[in-house]
Amino acid sequence: MLKEENFNDWYNEIVEKANLSDKRYPVKGMNVWTPYGWKIMRMIDTYIRQELDATDHEEVCFPLMIPETEFKKEKDHIKGFDSEVYWVTHAGLNKLDVRLVVRPTSETAMYPMFSLWIRSHQDLPLKVYQIVNTFRYETKQTRAFIRVREIHFFESHTCHDTEEDAQRQIDEDVEILSKIAKRLCLPYTLLVRTDWDKFPGAYYTVGIDTVMPNGRTLQIGSIHHYRTNFSEPYNITYEDENGEHKYVHQTTYGMSERLLGAVIGVHADDKGLVMPPDIASFQAVIIPILSKNNTELVTKESKILYEVLTAAGLRVKLDDRDARPGSKYYDWEIKGVPLRLELGGRDIENNVVTFVRRDTGEKGTIDAATVAEGTKLMLRVIADSMYAKAKEIQESHMQDIDSMENIPEDKILRFGWCGCPECGHAFEDKFDIKILGHAYRPEHAYKGKCIVCGKDTDMQVLAAHTM
Amino acid sequence: MLKEENFNDWYNEIVEKANLSDKRYPVKGMNVWTPYGWKIMRMIDTYIRQELDATDHEEVCFPLMIPETEFKKEKDHIKGFDSEVYWVTHAGLNKLDVRLVVRPTSETAMYPMFSLWIRSHQDLPLKVYQIVNTFRYETKQTRAFIRVREIHFFESHTCHDTEEDAQRQIDEDVEILSKIAKRLCLPYTLLVRTDWDKFPGAYYTVGIDTVMPNGRTLQIGSIHHYRTNFSEPYNITYEDENGEHKYVHQTTYGMSERLLGAVIGVHADDKGLVMPPDIASFQAVIIPILSKNNTELVTKESKILYEVLTAAGLRVKLDDRDARPGSKYYDWEIKGVPLRLELGGRDIENNVVTFVRRDTGEKGTIDAATVAEGTKLMLRVIADSMYAKAKEIQESHMQDIDSMENIPEDKILRFGWCGCPECGHAFEDKFDIKILGHAYRPEHAYKGKCIVCGKDTDMQVLAAHTM
Repeated sequence: MLKEENFNDWYNEIVEKANLSDKRYPVKGMNVWTPYGWKIMRMIDTYIRQELDATDHEEVCFPLMIPETEFKKEKDHIKGFDSEVYWVTHAGLNKLDVRLVVRPTSETAMYPMFSLWIRSHQDLPLKVYQIVNTFRYETKQTRAFIRVREIHFFESHTCHDTEEDAQRQIDEDVEILSKIAKRLCLPYTLLVRTDWDKFPGAYYTVGIDTVMPNGRTLQIGSIHHYRTNFSEPYNITYEDENGEHKYVHQTTYGMSERLLGAVIGVHADDKGLVMPPDIASFQAVIIPILSKNNTELVTKESKILYEVLTAAGLRVKLDDRDARPGSKYYDWEIKGVPLRLELGGRDIENNVVTFVRRDTGEKGTIDAATVAEGTKLMLRVIADSMYAKAKEIQESHMQDIDSMENIPEDKILRFGWCGCPECGHAFEDKFDIKILGHAYRPEHAYKGKCIVCGKDTDMQVLAAHTM
Repeated sequence: MLKEENFNDWYNEIVEKANLSDKRYPVKGMNVWTPYGWKIMRMIDTYIRQELDATDHEEVCFPLMIPETEFKKEKDHIKGFDSEVYWVTHAGLNKLDVRLVVRPTSETAMYPMFSLWIRSHQDLPLKVYQIVNTFRYETKQTRAFIRVREIHFFESHTCHDTEEDAQRQIDEDVEILSKIAKRLCLPYTLLVRTDWDKFPGAYYTVGIDTVMPNGRTLQIGSIHHYRTNFSEPYNITYEDENGEHKYVHQTTYGMSERLLGAVIGVHADDKGLVMPPDIASFQAVIIPILSKNNTELVTKESKILYEVLTAAGLRVKLDDRDARPGSKYYDWEIKGVPLRLELGGRDIENNVVTFVRRDTGEKGTIDAATVAEGTKLMLRVIADSMYAKAKEIQESHMQDIDSMENIPEDKILRFGWCGCPECGHAFEDKFDIKILGHAYRPEHAYKGKCIVCGKDTDMQVLAAHTM
């Protein structure tokens, strides 16, 4: 299956070939994380933890089940989730008095506790996060990592004394995002969603979208400003310096296993995965190229190479299986190892190691005397080049339009919108497309006309078909 | 509340004072992991991962929900869990065709997949594990970390070609256990459970018990040999070297957050937690002792001390809050930091750092010139001493008995048993006590008489009241 020709089937095939998850589990949309897939996901989690810990978020773990009574306190929220949550109704042989929701997200689990935890302005800001699985009863067709019913997920929740401090938090979230996305070599857009597409209960929502090579966008996460929309029904107040009780302002930030789905979709090719070096289980694989008269030497030197690279902090695999090099190449290409290092008699004679880049197939040599530095440098080159290529794909799909005629297929459309719901819905409905929103921090001012009604507007938005 | 006088109330108070978990969540028995408790639990998880990875187990993550149809395939298993599982019956607004069990343990989630994954003897042994939360509808009184309804848990599952290889796995599990328990300074007993107390579906079960200071035992984990009891109903077969299809032999090994409960119960005292150095969030806390004329010097030297210890790989907190030393001592004693390091003008003059051990209160000095080595050594001394003390508590509760008269209260009883269920039940019922089983690997042979019927026997068992 070719990526260019049939993206969807290609994607499914890659997930299966690389054995990242097993969808044969007897509940549809709840997939098994296999060792290889889980290792990559856990590596992504490690970077998320690193960034959140560095910005004074504390990790917690809240219960999975939420009493229906708590779940229903915020009216928009329950309306948004009513049709897609799992309900626990029985325990043992008993029917429960109060039904329990299996967490689709944890606002309603956390906020009754926040109302106990926060007393005074000295308790603020409160910044916690958790990495857990969440559950949504998807009715659309499921797809590994992209649309599943059990979702691996991080969610941070913060409380602040003022709306401005909550706003500062969102800017911090954007910073954190840029660092994590860099690890994954993923460009993205940050767009303030339309009012009818914001998170149920939010004041506003910033969607984080990645452009897939088929021209559709994949939302990989979101950041929300809640103002006091949740603190009021959940009664989360603090006493300010003058002894007055005030509602806290809240934000949340979440990203899911879709990060991995995006990595596959953007970077993988027809041969298999192409892993960004920072999240690759193995960053380099060493393949000894043996011939009859040098088996011992090459084996010994390969082991030394392995030791040297490992000691330098690299994640390396020495593939010394009794198999032909060609079949080893094939296996590691499927797994997406960024760099293949071949070591044969001639390489040893010439004091080099031969490398082959997974992303481009480019072949060359690294000086044996400085092989650790050379390998690290090459991994950095690969990462930069993967990012640049992904950025190019994203840019190539952007298209400015100024009328509703001759709208191109499979493009991210950029145009002026007056902001009124009537025009927005008219556009969305006509092309069965979604307005993703306007830039969270526009790079430059915009002056244009609404594509529907023609009114002057300073708001430019993107619209796209979504995965 | 004093530990000696009222262990149960003391335990609850310590959990609350140290802020390890919050039981005010609106579902009883489902507690919130606070940042401090979760940090410790995650540290324990890290050691578990380390040992399992080192023995070629691969980490996976299986779905939370198990279809009723799969759950019921092994008859003893479902009988054992019928009265204590949570049922998901609805999703969104729909009633599910097949009800879903929220995992109480993952045999029935994993084994349908194992039957797809295993084809030939070359796929064996299969060794996987996961660290997840499990769910049991406890009807007894709940208690943080010891008896909860959402349980943080690791479970390893292995498949083998022969019963002997499965047996070897159990010996490996015992090795792994000894390493993890050492980190926690916890002694334990390894006892083969009675037939009526084994895991539902198991061939035999080895219980891992720790003696709590109130003379009751706490089961912190278990290891099971399943033989082919599950592989037959789940049809997990492999083709052997002669092309014959055979059922795999299976084992499992699991331990839960009770590990943390045991650490609290065994080591904490009336002042608060006493953390084993290997799992302490902070292994040492530095308290600058300032007086008017040396503030600058002491502050500077304290920072240097912090840098030196951190650079040596220790987890250290510099408490430079504007508060009296006494109130800082109090705070860190509650949190159980193993070593307090005080640095004042006189210490600096004498080229020493003053230390106070959390476990014994002992005070002394460490040579400033070799402070990192000195601190590491002291932490090792503390760990050894905590283990020795716990071992002493365990031994002091063991009591040999040779008749059913004058049975002591709150002791672990050791006696001969012929092994027949009638005698076993008679003993258990008479004293409302549980036979924990016979030693998995007895240190020496036993010759004695059954305490109930008087018959000669070579089996010695332990019995105790359990937490």
